[in-house]
Amino acid sequence: MTFDAIDVIRTKRDGGRLSAEQIRWVVDAHTRGVVPDEQVSALLMAVFFRGMAPDELAAWTQAMIDSGERKDLSALGRPTADKHSTGGVGDKTTLPLAPLVAACGVAVPQLSGRGLGHTGGTLDKLESIPGWRADVHEEAYLAQLREVGAVICAAGHDLAPADKKLYALRDVTGTVESIPLIASSIMSKKIAEGADALVLDVKTGSGAFMKDPASSRELARTMVGLGEAAGVRTVALVTAMDRPLGRAAGNAVEVAESVEVLAGGGPADLVELTLALAREMLAGVGRDDVDPADALRDGRAMDVWRRMVAAQGGDPDAPLPQPAERHVVTAPATGTLTRLDAYALGVATWRLGAGRARKEDPVSAAAGITWTATVGERVTEGQPLLELQTDDAARIPRALEALAGAIGVDTPDEPLPLVLERITA
Amino acid sequence: MTFDAIDVIRTKRDGGRLSAEQIRWVVDAHTRGVVPDEQVSALLMAVFFRGMAPDELAAWTQAMIDSGERKDLSALGRPTADKHSTGGVGDKTTLPLAPLVAACGVAVPQLSGRGLGHTGGTLDKLESIPGWRADVHEEAYLAQLREVGAVICAAGHDLAPADKKLYALRDVTGTVESIPLIASSIMSKKIAEGADALVLDVKTGSGAFMKDPASSRELARTMVGLGEAAGVRTVALVTAMDRPLGRAAGNAVEVAESVEVLAGGGPADLVELTLALAREMLAGVGRDDVDPADALRDGRAMDVWRRMVAAQGGDPDAPLPQPAERHVVTAPATGTLTRLDAYALGVATWRLGAGRARKEDPVSAAAGITWTATVGERVTEGQPLLELQTDDAARIPRALEALAGAIGVDTPDEPLPLVLERITA
Repeated sequence: MTFDAIDVIRTKRDGGRLSAEQIRWVVDAHTRGVVPDEQVSALLMAVFFRGMAPDELAAWTQAMIDSGERKDLSALGRPTADKHSTGGVGDKTTLPLAPLVAACGVAVPQLSGRGLGHTGGTLDKLESIPGWRADVHEEAYLAQLREVGAVICAAGHDLAPADKKLYALRDVTGTVESIPLIASSIMSKKIAEGADALVLDVKTGSGAFMKDPASSRELARTMVGLGEAAGVRTVALVTAMDRPLGRAAGNAVEVAESVEVLAGGGPADLVELTLALAREMLAGVGRDDVDPADALRDGRAMDVWRRMVAAQGGDPDAPLPQPAERHVVTAPATGTLTRLDAYALGVATWRLGAGRARKEDPVSAAAGITWTATVGERVTEGQPLLELQTDDAARIPRALEALAGAIGVDTPDEPLPLVLERITA
Repeated sequence: MTFDAIDVIRTKRDGGRLSAEQIRWVVDAHTRGVVPDEQVSALLMAVFFRGMAPDELAAWTQAMIDSGERKDLSALGRPTADKHSTGGVGDKTTLPLAPLVAACGVAVPQLSGRGLGHTGGTLDKLESIPGWRADVHEEAYLAQLREVGAVICAAGHDLAPADKKLYALRDVTGTVESIPLIASSIMSKKIAEGADALVLDVKTGSGAFMKDPASSRELARTMVGLGEAAGVRTVALVTAMDRPLGRAAGNAVEVAESVEVLAGGGPADLVELTLALAREMLAGVGRDDVDPADALRDGRAMDVWRRMVAAQGGDPDAPLPQPAERHVVTAPATGTLTRLDAYALGVATWRLGAGRARKEDPVSAAAGITWTATVGERVTEGQPLLELQTDDAARIPRALEALAGAIGVDTPDEPLPLVLERITA
């Protein structure tokens, strides 16, 4: 069935409801290049202003899924669960979480992306492990899921290809910041991935895409609705991103911290969030009886990590890349650390070389920032607080500029609790 | 100066004010192909929702004018005035008006367009005169203005070229119906044309682009403001387009009716509006003392018409094209004609072959509709009311479909007065 793109745009523009048929047609025709970018960008801006009703959004998401293939993982004979984070500074939870949940008997098919902007990409982080490859072919992917139980790899082109095109268009047309468009972009890929259960980590705060709890909650609710409508058991946690997560942001430094968690150590906030997400993933497939903390304590999670890294060509014992340059920032006063701004740290990390400005840019494995204390902890004037790490000393001044005002001591600023809210259908 | 197109889009999207520099840059960069259509269509949709403040709109219009050349007609040594109509069914006033005003000593430089959709184009109408050419080169244009006093011809590519590109984009992206975008599109071309005074005929009613007096008034006020800001003495009349104007819609039939007016006859409403517009054009250049009705009565306007047609290769005495097929629609009852719907008549005229669906389509010179009575007049059941004229009998049934419900007799429906309002700065 063919529709008129101008009719579709006008209907949305004027606040009308698009039919499922119109939505299917326009998403498919755009993916095939029949409806041009300039018409779709006008439609996306109209969606920005008018939003989408739940049934429109479900149809839109389904059309994006149908632009590729929805994978069927039932042949694994094992429940499957995945997690998605909207992205935060120092958020490396995927790294310990996937092997941890796999160690509890639930397969984790994690198709990930690269970082763009001030939050890092999971694949970029893992690529700091010597030999590790993000690209895994379909058969090897299924074999690894069966044998190891966890895969973190690059998403193939067949996973919701409509999203690839729509996202690139949104990126240049000021239509990224739309809750229905964000939700459908994330959920089309996650639903197509084929997991039985999905846990969403929706960050909130300066370092997050959504800066305030209300919009984070709305995004979380929208995504939970889409997941459940598509038959995927979905839960979202709204979590704090006013300060960075753990004690490291970058690439190799985040791998190192993840290994600490898998070894039973690691920063308390990172461990707490990893376990909270693991419990939700297990509960999502009916395994509420299993305590993932056991798998951290007894080394099972670490075993899966080592096998997972090795299966993709990585050497889990190889030393990680080290930076050529280090620069220490000391605590400006003695008192309680009340502010360690996630966004500022993210930008500084990015400027040190850990992130990319354009898709085709390389990232530095060794670049990053570590910190010795987080919000709520005591610091002493002059103690080392941050360590900036980079391959190129010339990057340090601009990173320091980004950190201006990022650190606060003693101001009685109540930090967000780590997990603010749990949202279910 | 270079700006970021995404910033510009986001600023407008979020209700902010664009600077004159941002506007100049984005209009220029789009015209030069540096900012692509997909970004500009998102911006246009944001403008649709957010509007433009008067200073933004003035800068936008100026940027469109500056994409080409603003003509200087001062060398003519004579005042110049022009008229623009937002388009209506049977609206052929430009044809008698230009020679009429020229006959009163004011030069009329009328750069026109072709019709697209249910309202006809001035050039299409004139092209039904054997030999008449719409394309006039710059030098011949100035010579004709000097010697004849009036030119109606096609606008060259140097007249606000930004508008050509923007209009084509708006047409396919559902962003036509935006008062600031309509106003800047019209006024950029009219200001660039170089006339000292401008009269705007803003139609209102079913056959007009603006269906209700309130939005017609808003468009009129916006355009008057833009004209005055650019130093052009500008007045707008809001005029009725609930019923068609005169007694003929199409191409050759409208030329014939215009000649009737120039000969001192013609339908009362068409004569009234032509004189009202002529008086405004004359007043705009300080010639309130001249009564244009004299120039109709004494044949001076007809003389200028004949010289104007001949100057562009047309034979004012040649018979006009006649249709191969005629179909009469009779009055359905006896009583007062209370409804003769302009939009329905426009669509029927278009379906008979007088208009085009795509820019590159040809139009039929002989196609059109004439009517024997207009709203407010007495009709007798069975009397011929409409005559459909076409080259192709197969077009008649679809034209008749468009006319279903278009004619009303006896229902006491108050017609709009011909001139609803006069708007000045």
